[in-house]
Amino acid sequence: MTGTTLGAPLRIGVIGTGRIGRMHAGIIARQTPRAMLSAVSDVSSESAAEVSSLYGVPALSPDEVIAASDAVAICTSTDTHVDYIIAAAEAGRAIFCEKPVSLDLAEVDRAADVLGRTGVPFMVGFNRRFDPGHRAVRDAVVTGRIGAVRMARVTSRDPSPPPIDYVKVSGGIWVDMMIHDFDMAAFVIGSPVVQVWAQGANLIDPAIGAAGDVDVAVAVLTHANGAITTIDISREAPYGYDQRVEVLGSLGMAVSDNERLNRCEIYLADETRSPVLPNFFIERYEIAYRDQWRFFTDYVLDGGPSPVSLADGRAPVVIAAAAAESARTGSPVSV
Amino acid sequence: MTGTTLGAPLRIGVIGTGRIGRMHAGIIARQTPRAMLSAVSDVSSESAAEVSSLYGVPALSPDEVIAASDAVAICTSTDTHVDYIIAAAEAGRAIFCEKPVSLDLAEVDRAADVLGRTGVPFMVGFNRRFDPGHRAVRDAVVTGRIGAVRMARVTSRDPSPPPIDYVKVSGGIWVDMMIHDFDMAAFVIGSPVVQVWAQGANLIDPAIGAAGDVDVAVAVLTHANGAITTIDISREAPYGYDQRVEVLGSLGMAVSDNERLNRCEIYLADETRSPVLPNFFIERYEIAYRDQWRFFTDYVLDGGPSPVSLADGRAPVVIAAAAAESARTGSPVSV
Amino acid sequence: MTGTTLGAPLRIGVIGTGRIGRMHAGIIARQTPRAMLSAVSDVSSESAAEVSSLYGVPALSPDEVIAASDAVAICTSTDTHVDYIIAAAEAGRAIFCEKPVSLDLAEVDRAADVLGRTGVPFMVGFNRRFDPGHRAVRDAVVTGRIGAVRMARVTSRDPSPPPIDYVKVSGGIWVDMMIHDFDMAAFVIGSPVVQVWAQGANLIDPAIGAAGDVDVAVAVLTHANGAITTIDISREAPYGYDQRVEVLGSLGMAVSDNERLNRCEIYLADETRSPVLPNFFIERYEIAYRDQWRFFTDYVLDGGPSPVSLADGRAPVVIAAAAAESARTGSPVSV
Amino acid sequence: MTGTTLGAPLRIGVIGTGRIGRMHAGIIARQTPRAMLSAVSDVSSESAAEVSSLYGVPALSPDEVIAASDAVAICTSTDTHVDYIIAAAEAGRAIFCEKPVSLDLAEVDRAADVLGRTGVPFMVGFNRRFDPGHRAVRDAVVTGRIGAVRMARVTSRDPSPPPIDYVKVSGGIWVDMMIHDFDMAAFVIGSPVVQVWAQGANLIDPAIGAAGDVDVAVAVLTHANGAITTIDISREAPYGYDQRVEVLGSLGMAVSDNERLNRCEIYLADETRSPVLPNFFIERYEIAYRDQWRFFTDYVLDGGPSPVSLADGRAPVVIAAAAAESARTGSPVSV
Repeated sequence: MTGTTLGAPLRIGVIGTGRIGRMHAGIIARQTPRAMLSAVSDVSSESAAEVSSLYGVPALSPDEVIAASDAVAICTSTDTHVDYIIAAAEAGRAIFCEKPVSLDLAEVDRAADVLGRTGVPFMVGFNRRFDPGHRAVRDAVVTGRIGAVRMARVTSRDPSPPPIDYVKVSGGIWVDMMIHDFDMAAFVIGSPVVQVWAQGANLIDPAIGAAGDVDVAVAVLTHANGAITTIDISREAPYGYDQRVEVLGSLGMAVSDNERLNRCEIYLADETRSPVLPNFFIERYEIAYRDQWRFFTDYVLDGGPSPVSLADGRAPVVIAAAAAESARTGSPVSV
Repeated sequence: MTGTTLGAPLRIGVIGTGRIGRMHAGIIARQTPRAMLSAVSDVSSESAAEVSSLYGVPALSPDEVIAASDAVAICTSTDTHVDYIIAAAEAGRAIFCEKPVSLDLAEVDRAADVLGRTGVPFMVGFNRRFDPGHRAVRDAVVTGRIGAVRMARVTSRDPSPPPIDYVKVSGGIWVDMMIHDFDMAAFVIGSPVVQVWAQGANLIDPAIGAAGDVDVAVAVLTHANGAITTIDISREAPYGYDQRVEVLGSLGMAVSDNERLNRCEIYLADETRSPVLPNFFIERYEIAYRDQWRFFTDYVLDGGPSPVSLADGRAPVVIAAAAAESARTGSPVSV
Repeated sequence: MTGTTLGAPLRIGVIGTGRIGRMHAGIIARQTPRAMLSAVSDVSSESAAEVSSLYGVPALSPDEVIAASDAVAICTSTDTHVDYIIAAAEAGRAIFCEKPVSLDLAEVDRAADVLGRTGVPFMVGFNRRFDPGHRAVRDAVVTGRIGAVRMARVTSRDPSPPPIDYVKVSGGIWVDMMIHDFDMAAFVIGSPVVQVWAQGANLIDPAIGAAGDVDVAVAVLTHANGAITTIDISREAPYGYDQRVEVLGSLGMAVSDNERLNRCEIYLADETRSPVLPNFFIERYEIAYRDQWRFFTDYVLDGGPSPVSLADGRAPVVIAAAAAESARTGSPVSV
Repeated sequence: MTGTTLGAPLRIGVIGTGRIGRMHAGIIARQTPRAMLSAVSDVSSESAAEVSSLYGVPALSPDEVIAASDAVAICTSTDTHVDYIIAAAEAGRAIFCEKPVSLDLAEVDRAADVLGRTGVPFMVGFNRRFDPGHRAVRDAVVTGRIGAVRMARVTSRDPSPPPIDYVKVSGGIWVDMMIHDFDMAAFVIGSPVVQVWAQGANLIDPAIGAAGDVDVAVAVLTHANGAITTIDISREAPYGYDQRVEVLGSLGMAVSDNERLNRCEIYLADETRSPVLPNFFIERYEIAYRDQWRFFTDYVLDGGPSPVSLADGRAPVVIAAAAAESARTGSPVSV
């Protein structure tokens, strides 16, 4: 679980200590062998102070965090990502940026310019790519074990809808929720998406519909290699956080099924009972979140291609916009 | 497995003793408690003679089979179904007809007229409706156990493509293969399909593409109650005959997963091995095929609504045509 | 499921048409490709007449059944088995005998003499040997896939205790119930049992204890090759008929787990529900019972070693007596 | 995963920084919300220095660790446990002691005297009790969900045997390995063991036999409430660290099955492949080891009964001695 580090640890500063930033800070501080938490920052000085005291690191301004670190984790609100990326890149720091990089593709491209010029290591936080089960699906594809890829299925269902105030500013289900699935499809299929068709419905909460959004949605993606991915998502799954990925190839199928809280089954006279799924992403992707930082640290310290490059982070934003358009028009949209 | 019958058994004659008709004859003769095989008929006198000798029943002409039976199983080529339906209905016989009733909706309606006028019992052979696992999914919907239905998924994958000569006369993947899944969607959701969007690809065998057909296909169905069903099918699944059905409701999810040849697992140093799926429909739906005749017999002898009415049999033919159109145009098609 | 037979079918007569004999008659008549039911017999002429009418075969005396058949299935009460074996053997008929051949080893040896002298095919009805899952465990051993065998576990639990009147004449749990598990251990391990230690308890129904029997029991068997098998059985398992077999070898483990009524799972907010196990042996071992007759028929028609020889049938009777003694004395007993 | 602590954290010092002590130190330092690592100690100053530097805590003498801490974790060699227990208890410190407390029951009783007199919190490190799956089995018993307990099964198999030098000083398989299973049986059944019968064999490595030990072993435990537990263990399981627990009650059965590395299945033409089990105890019981410290911390800070009392720790040592005797004599031994 832990181990000694060779050489100096990578000093990682966290900008943004909301729910997800705080989690990253904890993993960096406690569970990432070759890294250490260097400093934290937040628009709420109270939040920053809390995390600061928890891990014994200074609470600083973003610029000071950048100055005090080898790498920064950008966990602020989406619209601030690119500015921090540029600031950190100009300072020569390695960068981890929460997804999505930006909902504005011009902004993404502004980041791309600076990242290209400075050449600093950069990785987007698509945590699901680091889940051992999903990775095993991809490995089955990459190694050729299941042959030429033909179809994939991705299912993502949240246990319950977010607050309606969140829905209103979320950018819509396609970019807020299905973006993960667009990334997963490209990840496991290993071929970019060239067309999307999408359809949504408002079946869960009328307030979501009133806010102009849908709460269940499906999409059919066509990849450059001809493979077809089907995605279905829902803002509500009463049985827990449903996360499944499946790829059909010419030699076989790889399926990453849901985890369970444990492996205890109770056999009763009427039925056998199994434990529920992990409730939500923090529990379900605990190992993925942890391993994400190990991948990032190894990438920064050892070099090599980014585990999730800016191009990887840009693609699903483009697809999400196309999906939203397709859902409006009923026609497939090329991307 | 067997039992004594109260009252005289239902005498069922089989018209058409090809692969599927022969199987039905065997189940009627040997495994259907309240029924007996009365006679068989086939355009190949050799085939009819073989089944005749196997079960000790006469091989007759279709008219003679109708005359000698309380009910008939129509298992001939699709284009002859309606003529036999009309002949049997006019003779007052109960009728079991293999799916699809006809690819020509006018023909289906011609059958509907006679069936409506004569009022004879009529059931279409959508065998998958009688699978215990799929039925349990439907039961979970019908009883309200999983709440209001929101989404469904149906997966059907054959182990390997049929001969190319068959593909050429099959009517295309939508009506030849996905028709089962259209029926399954309506069955488990319990709400008719009002719109379909579909996309196919030729990824398995170029000869299928050359024949003007596709070999993998997806469809997205919208039901009258607003629910959305996603279907994915493939002409080839090297790991066996993949048959899965899943419904998401407001209170839970019901999933009918694949059967295995047995429940023996071999734990080795590298991986654990489980047995493959049943190879194809005869093995996979053995119980469904058996129970189908029990449902038919009970329906004919005891009355009640048809387990699979002509309307049930007509709907997926309509959807299949719409799906084919959608796949051509890229736009959703109302049905 | 069915097929044409080459050559004349094996005419099998059933002596004893109680519950199990009636089931065998049905399988022979309807589901065994190379066999046909020739005649039946029972001490209750009513029972014999019923089965006779069900399958259209004559109800005769035992001697007449033997005369009218190529092979006989002896399904009468245990104490009559050997007399019928001898009568059928002297008549040169192939013999299937329900387990146990006899509780009296001298009787078994009396049968052995005649069988040895006449050389007629003989097979004992240890149905579980024909279960596909259990066979796969044995195959994993026989083929060397899991290496040298070291330990095995056999679990057998009935859904509910038999009537107390049955318990009183059952011969006790060791011979009435655990005899199957002794046979299974020898079957999957492929090495005879040389020592047994056993312990029982009366935890389910005091009436069983009052009748001098126990209702839960464990046994530890030592095989000639050094492997150790642990058996646990119970007269009651409220969740259904629990039948598991497991072998640990030097290269891996093979586990035959319980079947389920179907593969539908219902995911609810508190737990996921799976279907119960098959309720009892008729359902659980439906395929085993069916395949047993195919093995028997192939063995009689094609030759080769008996799938379950008299020696195989004798061994568990000896072990059962030793287990009963061990349970009384607390010490291991050599067999 | 992390959280703020109310009040001052519990300062826990670790005495003994071998493999297991080092793991505990890491969990205390990084993953136990209400605790902090205060100091470490080891007979190897190099080992202590390494852990000291890893977590930024002082490396001290055992006495100094006791002085500098609210609680101590005793992770030294077994024969030194009791002296450290007494030293810490006399100093009024809460105590966590690795299992077994001692192989010498007189020593255990010496600890009991001091613990009784001082009344300091004390807990034994039976980590498996904190596994979520095993706990769920116990919960099913404690809540009455599966009714009156009748039988249990515990399976423990290590992936591969320890070095022969370890075997020679291990005290033998009964106390070195099966002690965990004796504790698990008492834990899940909730009733002490009153009799044991045991049998071992040397089937894996002749060197283990030459060292006077066995490498596979079974035991049958009788509990005070009449229930019977069957244990089987092996020094080698090529498919990974096999850890299963099962309880049969009058209303149902609870089974804690093995975890898998992930939930990805690969369906191929011959078989379906699942990932192996976690290789060994560190991986398999990662959550149990983590939760163990949360239970300890809550117990010390909040009061209540010890999660694993000295009496709980003493019982399996007694049973192990009885099992060794039974394996020698072949007779059951009362405990």
